[in-house]
Amino acid sequence: MSMLNEMFDPDRVAVVGATPREGSIGRAVTSNLLEDFDGETVPVNPNYDEVLDTTCVGDIGDADADVAVVVVPPSIVLDAIEACGAAGTRNVVVITAGFGETGEEGANRERRLAEMADEYELNLVGPNSLGIMSTPSGMNATFGPENALPGGLSFMSQSGAFITAVLDWANDHGVGFKDVVSLGNKAVLDETDFIEYWGKDEGTDVIIGYLEGIENGRAFIEAARETTQETPIVAVKSGRTSAGAQAASSHTGTLAGSEKAYEAGLDQAGVIRAESVDELFDAAGILGNQPVPETDGVAIVTNAGGPGVMATDAVGDSVLEMASFTAETTEALRDAMPEEANVHNPVDVIGDADIDRFREALEIVADDDNVGAVLVLSAPTAVIDFGDLAEATCEVNEVTEAPIAACLMGGDRTREPKRLLQERGIPCYFDPARGIESLATLAKYREIREREYAEPMAFDVDRERAFEILASVHDRDDNRLGVEAMELLDAYGIPTPEGAIVDSPERAAEVAEGIDGDVVMKIVSPDILHKSDIGGVAVGVSDADAADTYEDLITRARNYQPDATLLGVQVQEMVDLDDGVETIVGMNRDPQFGPLLMFGLGGIFVEVMEDTTFRVAPVSEPEAREMTEEIRSAPLLRGARGRDPVDIDAVIETIGRLSQLVTDFPAILELDINPLVALPDDDGSNAAAVDVRLTVDPETLPNDPTHLTDSPEPTQTND
Amino acid sequence: MSMLNEMFDPDRVAVVGATPREGSIGRAVTSNLLEDFDGETVPVNPNYDEVLDTTCVGDIGDADADVAVVVVPPSIVLDAIEACGAAGTRNVVVITAGFGETGEEGANRERRLAEMADEYELNLVGPNSLGIMSTPSGMNATFGPENALPGGLSFMSQSGAFITAVLDWANDHGVGFKDVVSLGNKAVLDETDFIEYWGKDEGTDVIIGYLEGIENGRAFIEAARETTQETPIVAVKSGRTSAGAQAASSHTGTLAGSEKAYEAGLDQAGVIRAESVDELFDAAGILGNQPVPETDGVAIVTNAGGPGVMATDAVGDSVLEMASFTAETTEALRDAMPEEANVHNPVDVIGDADIDRFREALEIVADDDNVGAVLVLSAPTAVIDFGDLAEATCEVNEVTEAPIAACLMGGDRTREPKRLLQERGIPCYFDPARGIESLATLAKYREIREREYAEPMAFDVDRERAFEILASVHDRDDNRLGVEAMELLDAYGIPTPEGAIVDSPERAAEVAEGIDGDVVMKIVSPDILHKSDIGGVAVGVSDADAADTYEDLITRARNYQPDATLLGVQVQEMVDLDDGVETIVGMNRDPQFGPLLMFGLGGIFVEVMEDTTFRVAPVSEPEAREMTEEIRSAPLLRGARGRDPVDIDAVIETIGRLSQLVTDFPAILELDINPLVALPDDDGSNAAAVDVRLTVDPETLPNDPTHLTDSPEPTQTND
Repeated sequence: MSMLNEMFDPDRVAVVGATPREGSIGRAVTSNLLEDFDGETVPVNPNYDEVLDTTCVGDIGDADADVAVVVVPPSIVLDAIEACGAAGTRNVVVITAGFGETGEEGANRERRLAEMADEYELNLVGPNSLGIMSTPSGMNATFGPENALPGGLSFMSQSGAFITAVLDWANDHGVGFKDVVSLGNKAVLDETDFIEYWGKDEGTDVIIGYLEGIENGRAFIEAARETTQETPIVAVKSGRTSAGAQAASSHTGTLAGSEKAYEAGLDQAGVIRAESVDELFDAAGILGNQPVPETDGVAIVTNAGGPGVMATDAVGDSVLEMASFTAETTEALRDAMPEEANVHNPVDVIGDADIDRFREALEIVADDDNVGAVLVLSAPTAVIDFGDLAEATCEVNEVTEAPIAACLMGGDRTREPKRLLQERGIPCYFDPARGIESLATLAKYREIREREYAEPMAFDVDRERAFEILASVHDRDDNRLGVEAMELLDAYGIPTPEGAIVDSPERAAEVAEGIDGDVVMKIVSPDILHKSDIGGVAVGVSDADAADTYEDLITRARNYQPDATLLGVQVQEMVDLDDGVETIVGMNRDPQFGPLLMFGLGGIFVEVMEDTTFRVAPVSEPEAREMTEEIRSAPLLRGARGRDPVDIDAVIETIGRLSQLVTDFPAILELDINPLVALPDDDGSNAAAVDVRLTVDPETLPNDPTHLTDSPEPTQTND
Repeated sequence: MSMLNEMFDPDRVAVVGATPREGSIGRAVTSNLLEDFDGETVPVNPNYDEVLDTTCVGDIGDADADVAVVVVPPSIVLDAIEACGAAGTRNVVVITAGFGETGEEGANRERRLAEMADEYELNLVGPNSLGIMSTPSGMNATFGPENALPGGLSFMSQSGAFITAVLDWANDHGVGFKDVVSLGNKAVLDETDFIEYWGKDEGTDVIIGYLEGIENGRAFIEAARETTQETPIVAVKSGRTSAGAQAASSHTGTLAGSEKAYEAGLDQAGVIRAESVDELFDAAGILGNQPVPETDGVAIVTNAGGPGVMATDAVGDSVLEMASFTAETTEALRDAMPEEANVHNPVDVIGDADIDRFREALEIVADDDNVGAVLVLSAPTAVIDFGDLAEATCEVNEVTEAPIAACLMGGDRTREPKRLLQERGIPCYFDPARGIESLATLAKYREIREREYAEPMAFDVDRERAFEILASVHDRDDNRLGVEAMELLDAYGIPTPEGAIVDSPERAAEVAEGIDGDVVMKIVSPDILHKSDIGGVAVGVSDADAADTYEDLITRARNYQPDATLLGVQVQEMVDLDDGVETIVGMNRDPQFGPLLMFGLGGIFVEVMEDTTFRVAPVSEPEAREMTEEIRSAPLLRGARGRDPVDIDAVIETIGRLSQLVTDFPAILELDINPLVALPDDDGSNAAAVDVRLTVDPETLPNDPTHLTDSPEPTQTND
């Protein structure tokens, strides 16, 4: 996709299906291009010699175009695309609707469209797109009513109507764009392609998106991680709630992945998520114009105590904190301010402050190294003119490295000062909370930019053995494996209690004797789900009793369900639960993001308290560590309530090994290690996977282990 | 305070300290009154015959005023108030600052002001107030720059600057008020007085407040509960966060109560809490103009799929739900809409919808009984005119009982349509989320209006015996009581395990023999905090061993700390923790709201998961029940994970009895029953308070039990 430069900065744009017919999309696109585009607009339509006073060619082959905008009826779109391909026009924007969003026939047509684009190596936007824009050349290749103003935001949207709405608003508020793309059905180009392009584009300061789904989560995460080191990405992911997801799916046919996966994936990608239109543009506005704060301390300077308290509350709600001034700052404020003023943060210059006092206070706090960001906050008074204050704010903004936001609390009199501030890139609101929230966005972005993404955890593992165990699913009816697959964990170095599955009383006794202390014995059968309920589990069995217990368990299982498949009896070392903490490590496969890992404390914590955390696999060591730290019950791992702390590194390593397993084998659809007992840090094995369940898709399994993709180089030493 | 009518609708208003001096507050107030007030304005100042062309009297006694606005210097305010009192002017607004907000001397002056107001039975606003307004008579008795427009909102604020800011904005946005009060330091009249007045005031549709503190939490709750049955109250409680509370306290000297108490108290009071200025006015606007929805189902009608999804997400985030249409509605929509339209909720009339199609869809859904509220949501298109859509929305609003909000997603072209909608009381935003949130406010208010506030729980209790136990604190150095106060619980009918505190081996044996099964024995000493650590607790003691165990425990305590006060040894029935669930019921006394009850599950749930809930006491049975239902770990009480459910009614009764105890005895500052073991529902006592700790203020205790106030009539039968 190296040619997106040409897509957004073409010399010649062809409109395939251009027409002078009033009210038609073909006319609207042609007219929009003719109006502002610096390059050449070439109408293509065999039925006309001229469209809107411009020479019209009969065939795209005669247009010599860098970009073709296709507006012909759906039935002939494929012919038009083929013609583009043959003519060597590599960038195509398909505005025509009637594809995947309309049912079976449309979906087939869309598949053929994608195949053809692949064949001719086309960059294809759409179908069902409003079009694209790029302001440096004035290109408006959409059928929307308005062109964008120039600016530093590049904007992609899965909703064309949302673009129309945003431009209508943005043009009246002086908000400008570099490029705009209506993604349509994303048959070929999707959000990841544009992130990659805009991430390297000089003209793009901030990437903003309205997304209802993400096509390829892993590619998205990787592209966004790289991009956000330089260029922030802010996005509304719509369809967050189950009601919203349903609405999104009926609207575009987008298959909704789980919100948990989006939450984890977008966070791992470094995307700043907005939950409303206001949040989206508040964030984009300040990210594009103000520097990133060096510290989280914010200084508030106000002439109004109450609003100062409101702003301070907003700081308390955010990732920011109230800056502690240096002694010099406090002293300088005390010298400059009247006695009744509050020289601590929030600084109250008092209602009778004129512009000089206000400016001086601003200059003093902006110069303090503890101050990462500044909020200018004013109520209307007889002595302060908002215009003067806006100018003073702009002056301070020129000389300080701290970002600034302003809140001018008033009506129409704020309009001009607000415009001045916004022209200089300083956001201005009525509500103090909104001013603080916009500054907080900068701090969030600093955290993202400072992230050092580590490599996924990788260990020396036995992939062939894992494959053999997974392949045993071919013998099953239900694609599920249980405790009989414990060796799968073993193959990936996940510690499991000593033991084996045996098929005779003699072997049971032998295995039990080989294990120190008493053992646990369990029926192994895919047909018996609740083993305890039928007496299929025996705890604390001595070596001497192992053989008899084997017979008992088999008899009970037979009595309970004569036709059940019995795979044998598991004889397992007893793990002392009293010393450890039960955790759950699980995974399910998300349609967009692939393997989604889950971690939580066992029992009530997952089932009742829903205290869980998620990451898209593969995870790095820091990501796995975060999982063990961010659950609310994390203090229990660290030894709350007088217990010994568990060996958290052993848990992290298990998460990493599971991450590698589910990444290596896309055939694993779901997997739960429940419980993974985390044990106190001593010199033995400090975690024990006591039970496992998984679902495998036999169709996705390779035919033999030689078809396995190469494992990454181990980045972690095995203990 | 029956005379607030006169305060807000006076015939004559005196300005004590009126002056023609430019830039003075006295001139500003006089000028504001003279400008719009329908009644008579009487300047009072011995130094002038006329002020601003109006006859000035030398003494308030000559003014015959219903309201006196006092602007004289702080040193002579008290004289002026006395003169008002003597003159029979019962309503006084003290604008002068320099009282409690300025330190010791000012605080003394404020106390004398309050005493004088009490003596003369004055309704006194302030000091340190911007003044008051009432639009029906045009009275602007403030020194602010603008008068309010007439409307249905009555507004009180602890920040004068916030009033100035809000009026500046409101006047330019056509938002009107009935009365406005700047509360100032609240030396006499506070938020509760105005809630009581406005709750009965015909002209007030919605009460809105900016509060940094509440003076008397209990009175506030009672007044607000009554008021909100008819008139909604929306308030910003500023100083929510610890940073904000600190800022508020340095700003007004308000003593910050705990946010937990405010959260519980405002919710119990039925106050809708706003967290920002936008939220405050969004809520007030719709509450004053749109009806309360009959169901929580909301219908969205849009011409834009993407924004429809955003609105649906906002529904998912709110207390609302997406309405399920009746078959008739779906059919009617199918008949009226083109095939591509989505006739399910959110209804998508498609981008080519003209005003007729849009209106028809609106009419159809608004007529559906499952639809409690409607959101009209439009992106700009070539075929829809926002003005037409605004008019159609107003028409539908006329005929439907469902509240309506609109989102017109565009720039300047939305200005006039928005004004039209707002004039008709229909809120209009750009952001779909904000439209939904405003509709959700109506649903929240319906819930409040439908509340039936039950009487506080009250039981037959032994107050004299409780008093005797509390009085034992007089013998202590540290005001704390421990397990030796178990009888206090007993006196209030809270079930405790059988047992007694004994002072000899013989008594220990006797008590142990009287108890079925083994016993627990514990050292009782105010000087030994961690009894287990020194071997001061013996579990599972048989009757035969009780005497020896007594000696052992005493010896250990003596060895550990020879000078410790030993109150004896507690011999207590063993409560079987395995069958029960450990809970904690606690209380601490908040400076504003008084006794604040806490409930949670014991151990990790309170300590690690912070899974607790709070209510201001006294609580009714439904409130106590809510406490047991709303903690996240509540399923464990109901028998999650295969356990027997506990007797929740026994827990609720214990909460109710504790509520009565701490309400009866303001001397109890803190009290924890930890654990209260909740036991399965059988025919015995199904809860057991195993341990108690409390702090008592000896100063607050009555001298003898005959001074105890009367208990309320029992509303609950004792088991």
